Amino acid sequence: MKESWSSLDTFEPNFRPLVVIELAKSTKEETREWLTRRIADKKANGGAQLLVKPLITENGDQNIYLVGASHFRLLLGAETVGLVKECTDNSMRTFTYSSRKTFKDFVDDNHSFLTMAECQYIIKHELENLRAKDEKIIPGYPQAKLYPGKSIVRRLLTNGILVQIFPLHDQEELKKLRHTWYGRVKIGYQPLDEIRCYFGETIALYFGFLEYFTFALIPMAVIGIPYYVFAWEDYDKYVMFATFNLLWSTVILEVWKRLCAVMTYRWGTLLMKRQFEEPRPGFHGVLGVNPVTGREEPVYSSIKRQLRIYLVSLPFVCLCLYFSLYVMMIYFDLEQWALDYHKENESNFSSLMLFVPSIIYAVVIEIMNRIYRYAAEFLTSWENHRLESSYQNHLILKVLVFNFLNCFASLFYIAFVLFDMKLLRQSLATLLITSQILNQFAEAFLPYWLQKRHKKRMKKKMYSQKTDTDLSLVEQVNLEKEMGTYFGTFDDYLELFLQFGYVSLFSCVYPLAAVFAVLNNITEIYSDALKMCRVYKRPFAEPTANIGVWQLAFETMSVISVVTNCILIGMSPQVNALFPDSKMDLILTVAFVEHMLLAMKFVMAFVIPDKPRDIQIKLARLEFESLEALKQQ
Amino acid sequence: MKESWSSLDTFEPNFRPLVVIELAKSTKEETREWLTRRIADKKANGGAQLLVKPLITENGDQNIYLVGASHFRLLLGAETVGLVKECTDNSMRTFTYSSRKTFKDFVDDNHSFLTMAECQYIIKHELENLRAKDEKIIPGYPQAKLYPGKSIVRRLLTNGILVQIFPLHDQEELKKLRHTWYGRVKIGYQPLDEIRCYFGETIALYFGFLEYFTFALIPMAVIGIPYYVFAWEDYDKYVMFATFNLLWSTVILEVWKRLCAVMTYRWGTLLMKRQFEEPRPGFHGVLGVNPVTGREEPVYSSIKRQLRIYLVSLPFVCLCLYFSLYVMMIYFDLEQWALDYHKENESNFSSLMLFVPSIIYAVVIEIMNRIYRYAAEFLTSWENHRLESSYQNHLILKVLVFNFLNCFASLFYIAFVLFDMKLLRQSLATLLITSQILNQFAEAFLPYWLQKRHKKRMKKKMYSQKTDTDLSLVEQVNLEKEMGTYFGTFDDYLELFLQFGYVSLFSCVYPLAAVFAVLNNITEIYSDALKMCRVYKRPFAEPTANIGVWQLAFETMSVISVVTNCILIGMSPQVNALFPDSKMDLILTVAFVEHMLLAMKFVMAFVIPDKPRDIQIKLARLEFESLEALKQQ
Repeated sequence: MKESWSSLDTFEPNFRPLVVIELAKSTKEETREWLTRRIADKKANGGAQLLVKPLITENGDQNIYLVGASHFRLLLGAETVGLVKECTDNSMRTFTYSSRKTFKDFVDDNHSFLTMAECQYIIKHELENLRAKDEKIIPGYPQAKLYPGKSIVRRLLTNGILVQIFPLHDQEELKKLRHTWYGRVKIGYQPLDEIRCYFGETIALYFGFLEYFTFALIPMAVIGIPYYVFAWEDYDKYVMFATFNLLWSTVILEVWKRLCAVMTYRWGTLLMKRQFEEPRPGFHGVLGVNPVTGREEPVYSSIKRQLRIYLVSLPFVCLCLYFSLYVMMIYFDLEQWALDYHKENESNFSSLMLFVPSIIYAVVIEIMNRIYRYAAEFLTSWENHRLESSYQNHLILKVLVFNFLNCFASLFYIAFVLFDMKLLRQSLATLLITSQILNQFAEAFLPYWLQKRHKKRMKKKMYSQKTDTDLSLVEQVNLEKEMGTYFGTFDDYLELFLQFGYVSLFSCVYPLAAVFAVLNNITEIYSDALKMCRVYKRPFAEPTANIGVWQLAFETMSVISVVTNCILIGMSPQVNALFPDSKMDLILTVAFVEHMLLAMKFVMAFVIPDKPRDIQIKLARLEFESLEALKQQ
Repeated sequence: MKESWSSLDTFEPNFRPLVVIELAKSTKEETREWLTRRIADKKANGGAQLLVKPLITENGDQNIYLVGASHFRLLLGAETVGLVKECTDNSMRTFTYSSRKTFKDFVDDNHSFLTMAECQYIIKHELENLRAKDEKIIPGYPQAKLYPGKSIVRRLLTNGILVQIFPLHDQEELKKLRHTWYGRVKIGYQPLDEIRCYFGETIALYFGFLEYFTFALIPMAVIGIPYYVFAWEDYDKYVMFATFNLLWSTVILEVWKRLCAVMTYRWGTLLMKRQFEEPRPGFHGVLGVNPVTGREEPVYSSIKRQLRIYLVSLPFVCLCLYFSLYVMMIYFDLEQWALDYHKENESNFSSLMLFVPSIIYAVVIEIMNRIYRYAAEFLTSWENHRLESSYQNHLILKVLVFNFLNCFASLFYIAFVLFDMKLLRQSLATLLITSQILNQFAEAFLPYWLQKRHKKRMKKKMYSQKTDTDLSLVEQVNLEKEMGTYFGTFDDYLELFLQFGYVSLFSCVYPLAAVFAVLNNITEIYSDALKMCRVYKRPFAEPTANIGVWQLAFETMSVISVVTNCILIGMSPQVNALFPDSKMDLILTVAFVEHMLLAMKFVMAFVIPDKPRDIQIKLARLEFESLEALKQQ
């Protein structure tokens, strides 16, 4: 096995395997040949012009291919995807091959100018944009239709011929990263730049946000502790705490935008104009000319998309939300019925029956969640978004709203229909703590343990055949292809989002929530890091300039929390005691304070600039330069 | 006199007078010479390279100069100010002299490629950006200090040496414009493109907004009429009307943004990057290098500006608002006192005394308004904004807030403290109608009448000396220099803004307000057109891409009106009758409805794109092209 690889090495001394393509075992010879030819073919002939080599495994199967590219090809690819790099004069500029000499750290034989993650991203981009020309079908599979402009990889995936494409880990780099990231016990920031180099901007930004958010919650947690310790239940102290929380949450979200701009400017993604990129592989339409770039690519009417969003997706989401609320009401009825039954009968069986509604509800919620998620993915894909970011944002928004309702509807019911503050505090604490423990366990430690067992077994099997201690490439590929796939940052952000909800929506009822959130997030950083480095396949890097629709989601949550907190304070017996004569005065005061707080939030969001001044100047300079360049033409 | 002009004509056959400079009569010869030399001097020597000729009037004074420029100079100036024109391929591009052949309607000897308003704008820009080099003082005026980079014209103005600069009317064009604009009675749109050609984008946009706003109010007016005719006072009808109004106002403001983008794209100002222009003449600072454009110009720290805004201007404005409220409270006390006095004494004198508080209050308000406006101008100027638009926006915001309070505070007091709906309706009607009549009279007809009288007198004087019937250039200049100066669209927008307040804030109390607003606006269009064409000096054109901070002001008003209308509906006896048992339920319902309406407004504002899709594509294409051009460099 090792030999087969070394024979490759002699054959092509520069070949560095970057990406692995796994085909189905049954793939026809004809198809394999066609695919490898198309991948290796010259750009001028409509190919991807990449290097592709079969990896011959022990059982002689040829269903795994390694893809790489020459240094020159990668630089051209960097130009195609529009990578932004730092120049020798410290400005950030879009990389072009012809201006390569002006970039910092660029030497013609310096292969570290592009990080491995960037090279893998380029290869993924090239593979995904390998589009059908005159082929009507995939050779060997007459049922897999193609039309001009259809992404070949996408069609292979949907037809099950292509099992997966994934980038290879770089064991040495990974070791280094692991060490600086979580290898030693230390207090300090995460090595975000190193994370970005290895995993790409989307993941680095998630860890950056997680870290920032944890720091930002510390003041809330610190202020929250004495409320628990001294059991402060005075009106004025609660109001102070809630007011601080509400304004603080606006400040942290605004400041995050600025920090994010600073980071992504340094990484070059703030300047990357991804809207000018080729469409995402799932995008379909008749082959036409993009009105902006003038390139030939599939085009799809935006009016049709709007119609699909507003006439199909939106009503569907609303219906699902209504249905979910309906199920919740049934659950509350069942709960009541079980309680009544228990009171009447008072037996072992009846006390067991008390748990039945909760269990049924939990199961139903889980099922509904899965079905809904599947439907949301289908709908968003059907909406046919041109950009990956817009697809992601629409998908996230759909799933988010549903999850928000499922998580918080019962708490809202307890708070504003049952008016039971004690039950609210109790449910909040239970939900928060159990969800945190379960999440951390299910997300990182369980897969880690499974992965470790699997690895051991694999190694044992290999030891039985050979005596090498170091992992060969074949072993590495075989190990990694069995690892789980990381499906993006969605679930991680969702966890943070729901946590932010627990902390802010009812903060004046349960000030300790922030403390638990901080504690959870500190371990979350470590368990997520572990998950990324040891449990999952390496994910493809995805350049991004911000956290997208999550910013909107967090901001909306912080607006809703103004309303909920004001109502909660207004309902507290301490505040009620201040207005003994007139409930009306109480409500009017609360409403007035709430409006003032909301107005303050909006003014603050308006007044704090989204980008720091120096980034603004740098962006303006770039815009000015490009306008001047256009004039010169 | 006519001869002196013809002698100019022979001397410089191409000289077309565009702008008039009037110096003080006492200006020293030395200063005149220096100024004309600086204006005529070559760009390379730091001059403006314009043509300048003295206009010798009947009494031999030489204090008026005519400024023009060669065709070539104007084209270079168009490049400097960054005019955007249509190309032969129908795209809009920044004009450059070298690419002049690619522009639509460009022929080398076609002098109508630039409109007269554009030529005058270019000359104004060049004059204002005529900056001191090594001069320490203005020759002949040792007290008028100069420093490198200081605008000479600005210093001359502040020292009273320069009386005014104004562009000349074009009698023929003006006649044509008057005819299509208001010369014949017709139902239809205003000739906005022609207005823009003659008066520039700012004024055209004002008339566009006025027209759009009038049309947009028609549905409200139409729905409002039956309320008056049939005296509908039912709860459900009021709620329907108010809900319609509230959502409608969001829609019209969002749609306006789109219309505005369409218009300004056609006019080229949407693409004009005014932030890259040289600073406004009033801007001062040490001579440095602009970090964006790399040009040498005065620079001023933005942190200092922020500190001035937040630590001085903001507290000052708040203090003034507080003071104004305080004065209002005193007025209400006085009113009460006068009423009591009248009840006790019941004499002629006492009934006369009833009017005293109102008169005192009106006078005090007027004085306060003037002082405040002066202070606001001083403060905004002291804040030292680099861009004219940012100066304007800050000034407008300051004056706006104060005017809003003065106009509506008493109505708010009547509505939400006195709870007197009848008085509210009455005050609203009185305020709305009287302010409309007074405004139209004071704004257009009175100056028009004065102007006409003045013109007659002037003509008489001239006829006594000569027999020419046609106005010569000297006569034209003499006439126009005495005309009033149009100080920008501020007061016109303010009038519309306050009208929008009357219509929307209390719309459910007085649905007829929209009818009066529509009627007023129809005549307003005519009286404003008359004012622009016949009463005032021609104003300099000012390119602009939107209505600036007024958009924000109107949007804020529409948010506030959600709150006021919900409260008013909640207070109405019809709604109170629906909740006979519990005031609390009523308030909670109202608060809930209000929050839903606000949420809907925000969602609508978020969902409706600010620019139509085709404009978005055109803008994206331009951005893409300029980025590509930068890459090519």
